[in-house]
Amino acid sequence: MSTAVPRDRDASFEDGSEIVFHPIGRIHSGHTKRDRTPIQPVYAYGCPGVVEVYPKFEAGLADLEGFSHLFLLYHFDRAGPLKLTVKPFLQDREHGLFATRSPSRPNAIGLSIVELIRREGRFIHCDGLDIFDGTPLLDIKPVVSRFDSVHPTRNGWQDEVDEETARKIGIKKGEKDG
Amino acid sequence: MSTAVPRDRDASFEDGSEIVFHPIGRIHSGHTKRDRTPIQPVYAYGCPGVVEVYPKFEAGLADLEGFSHLFLLYHFDRAGPLKLTVKPFLQDREHGLFATRSPSRPNAIGLSIVELIRREGRFIHCDGLDIFDGTPLLDIKPVVSRFDSVHPTRNGWQDEVDEETARKIGIKKGEKDG
Repeated sequence: MSTAVPRDRDASFEDGSEIVFHPIGRIHSGHTKRDRTPIQPVYAYGCPGVVEVYPKFEAGLADLEGFSHLFLLYHFDRAGPLKLTVKPFLQDREHGLFATRSPSRPNAIGLSIVELIRREGRFIHCDGLDIFDGTPLLDIKPVVSRFDSVHPTRNGWQDEVDEETARKIGIKKGEKDG
Repeated sequence: MSTAVPRDRDASFEDGSEIVFHPIGRIHSGHTKRDRTPIQPVYAYGCPGVVEVYPKFEAGLADLEGFSHLFLLYHFDRAGPLKLTVKPFLQDREHGLFATRSPSRPNAIGLSIVELIRREGRFIHCDGLDIFDGTPLLDIKPVVSRFDSVHPTRNGWQDEVDEETARKIGIKKGEKDG
């Protein structure tokens, strides 16, 4: 059974402090339907998209095109209500929310590692988009081999899911293709 | 020369929408001084810390201990003013902010990949902390090999920095040790 917690601040948060962010741009993709959107970039090869950064921030993009991969941080603006335990796409069992990548998080921040194809001014063309069209962009960080090449030794419940099953479910083309 | 942009919303943001987040916990580490804090987890081996999650969210941590590595998302609450071009720690040249991991970002969200050592209830003991003591925690996501093992082919200006120099600067023990 899922544990739903209201998003109301006074009831849910121990720490009343507010952190206010504003979109720095929008992510444009071909994804508009939940059941046709890949669950992760690794299952979104061949799903292009454009990351638009608002003009005010364009100067911050200098030299970004030298990197092959980017972390995109964005607001899961269409996430469902917060649930502290969820059944992930890849396994029909409940897990703690933070042991999953579910969008229904206390702070609905999404994280995707996408491939940078080219930059045209404030428009960054990418591949591997697993993000809904129109999603508000919060931040872009370069993926840096010397910082980010970690090799997990344990993958929790994910280690119980075989690769073929993960790929089949993750791509989410089943509904469309057959 | 750095380009400073005021944080004032009306002047800086094309999109007036506000996204309000609240800390879900605090990160406790031994780091209190900027010039003694490693610049990235990869240079923070042997720097332990405790990620405290507020009681309201403890149920969301179930099964997290099965994963060896975590993404921590947090608020750079002591970041300097936004700059759209910055000189990163590792190179004495200006780069666009988004081509660096500088904390002085429009939305000051930090991202660190840390090693999970053990979980005791709502306290997660980790290694590889490059985060100031008391930093507000926004989210925890498991690092999943099948999702997150990307192999960048280009690392932009970072490819111009040799590994020995990066490590020496990144660890930031120079000031302390000699």
